[in-house]
Amino acid sequence: MYAVTMENPPALGKESIIDVQGSEGKSGSVLGPGDDAAVVAAPDGRVVVSTDVLVDGVHFRQDWSAPDDIGHRAAAASLADVAAMGAACTALVVGLAAPADLPLAFTLRLADGLRDEATLVGASLVGGDVVRSDLLTIAVTALGDLGGRDPVTRSGARPGDVVAVCGRLGWAQAGLTVLRRGFGSPRALVAAHRRPEPPYSAAVDAAMGGATSMIDISDGLVADLRHVAAASTVRIALNTAALGPDAPLVEIASAFGADPLEWVLGGGDDHAFVATFPQRSPLPDGFRVIGAVHAAQDSPDVIVDGAPWTGSSGHVHFGPG
Amino acid sequence: MYAVTMENPPALGKESIIDVQGSEGKSGSVLGPGDDAAVVAAPDGRVVVSTDVLVDGVHFRQDWSAPDDIGHRAAAASLADVAAMGAACTALVVGLAAPADLPLAFTLRLADGLRDEATLVGASLVGGDVVRSDLLTIAVTALGDLGGRDPVTRSGARPGDVVAVCGRLGWAQAGLTVLRRGFGSPRALVAAHRRPEPPYSAAVDAAMGGATSMIDISDGLVADLRHVAAASTVRIALNTAALGPDAPLVEIASAFGADPLEWVLGGGDDHAFVATFPQRSPLPDGFRVIGAVHAAQDSPDVIVDGAPWTGSSGHVHFGPG
Repeated sequence: MYAVTMENPPALGKESIIDVQGSEGKSGSVLGPGDDAAVVAAPDGRVVVSTDVLVDGVHFRQDWSAPDDIGHRAAAASLADVAAMGAACTALVVGLAAPADLPLAFTLRLADGLRDEATLVGASLVGGDVVRSDLLTIAVTALGDLGGRDPVTRSGARPGDVVAVCGRLGWAQAGLTVLRRGFGSPRALVAAHRRPEPPYSAAVDAAMGGATSMIDISDGLVADLRHVAAASTVRIALNTAALGPDAPLVEIASAFGADPLEWVLGGGDDHAFVATFPQRSPLPDGFRVIGAVHAAQDSPDVIVDGAPWTGSSGHVHFGPG
Repeated sequence: MYAVTMENPPALGKESIIDVQGSEGKSGSVLGPGDDAAVVAAPDGRVVVSTDVLVDGVHFRQDWSAPDDIGHRAAAASLADVAAMGAACTALVVGLAAPADLPLAFTLRLADGLRDEATLVGASLVGGDVVRSDLLTIAVTALGDLGGRDPVTRSGARPGDVVAVCGRLGWAQAGLTVLRRGFGSPRALVAAHRRPEPPYSAAVDAAMGGATSMIDISDGLVADLRHVAAASTVRIALNTAALGPDAPLVEIASAFGADPLEWVLGGGDDHAFVATFPQRSPLPDGFRVIGAVHAAQDSPDVIVDGAPWTGSSGHVHFGPG
């Protein structure tokens, strides 16, 4: 534990605001906030763990997102990573580096957002560390339980598999574009940027339904599938006819003179789940086929309608990154 | 996963430098870096988890600490928290927010420090997230396994117990004072600031030896024992005759006209372990008695030589915090 200072003891360190509103005893938490460390149930005998860092001005903007939105978004990023392994999320721990003049109400609402997103998947906010920093930075670590299943990795895709996706594609990026141009609507798209809605339970369904590989889409469909292609040493072929952008994307792209398919293929942060399944295997509810897995040619790659994709190769944030 | 940008893909995101030097297959790691999440063995069926955040200029200074020192220090902070529950550390995940102009060699050495400190306790660096930020910030989450034991919390101290400590007291704070005054020696004290040496195995020994409560000293002996007193609803009485500052502290305090006892009672960041044990219980190797637990008076408190302690009530960092 760090930085319990004399100037401002109640808001800093591990006896912090995260503890004050603690969630001891809930779901996976055996020993909640308030000690050196938390204790979380791991009935499987293994624990899945993933961490994500969000920086003010890089991954969110305080003028574009409310504090609870930022909390939801930060929690979703890590929870979706754990779900993408086919695990049920159990707990979150949060490191918060915050300016001295950040209002207490901001921190409380941020914690609310983190806690509420965790609750969506039955997980608890079990601990954290709050320190001073000139730059608001949020580090979220999520834990999960595999329930006796093998983890679904990026490396299991096999030639002949189908590629299927569950969740929104391009909505968060379209919402970010809207905000960048100074607009506050369409509200559905802006909301998709502020609070992604990963279909967490579908990821667990995919694991139970025989998915051979899975990843959550945080960088963009093509960029993330390139990770799968590389790890599995395969070619992944996408079919844009199956990727038809959703109506709100088509509408706003038309108004902006943009190509909605760029958002679908390149937009990150929706945390949809893309998985591969054996051919003719029944797909879990919510998954739709968008392509197929083939043997790798010269090197593993992702092709779109039979050709290399020349659009943006990955999600670019709006800050210094 | 966040922020794999087009500008600088190899150093960012979860396919990052942390993965490149991965530690897959070591000790507690079932599935190491390179996927959405890592999978870590949790044979106990519970997992201990703690997170700490270190910010450049608040918790370390690049002109006072080498990158590997910073890595050691960041890892030690979280590993000591897990050990203070009586758990064996199994894994680390790291979130690194780093300026675009941070040299790659810096990041590699930082990762070396994190990995080497983890190795000291048989744990692995199993994953992480690297993002862009104007301010170097390191968030370390440590996991541990209780081996079937109850966690040793802050709340189990009982009147009649003895208070015992294992590890250095005041060294890191004395080293920081030396650096602040522009000196680079005594080297042992400066080194204690740069790389604390928590006696990790002693913490597990304490748990197996019947410790009724335990905490790692990150904020200062008195400040951290106040957490124990509050959680256990007891008075903790320290005896300075048993706390005689170590020789290097006495020497430099004399040169600086400082009181070495201030460092012993108020200095943080050494990550010594202070625990309570039943009276007449044999103490584990390395622990020495420094006080006793009494029934709380008006409210739980810590007294020193029979009186309230009027020194610095907690460790104050050198930055904006």
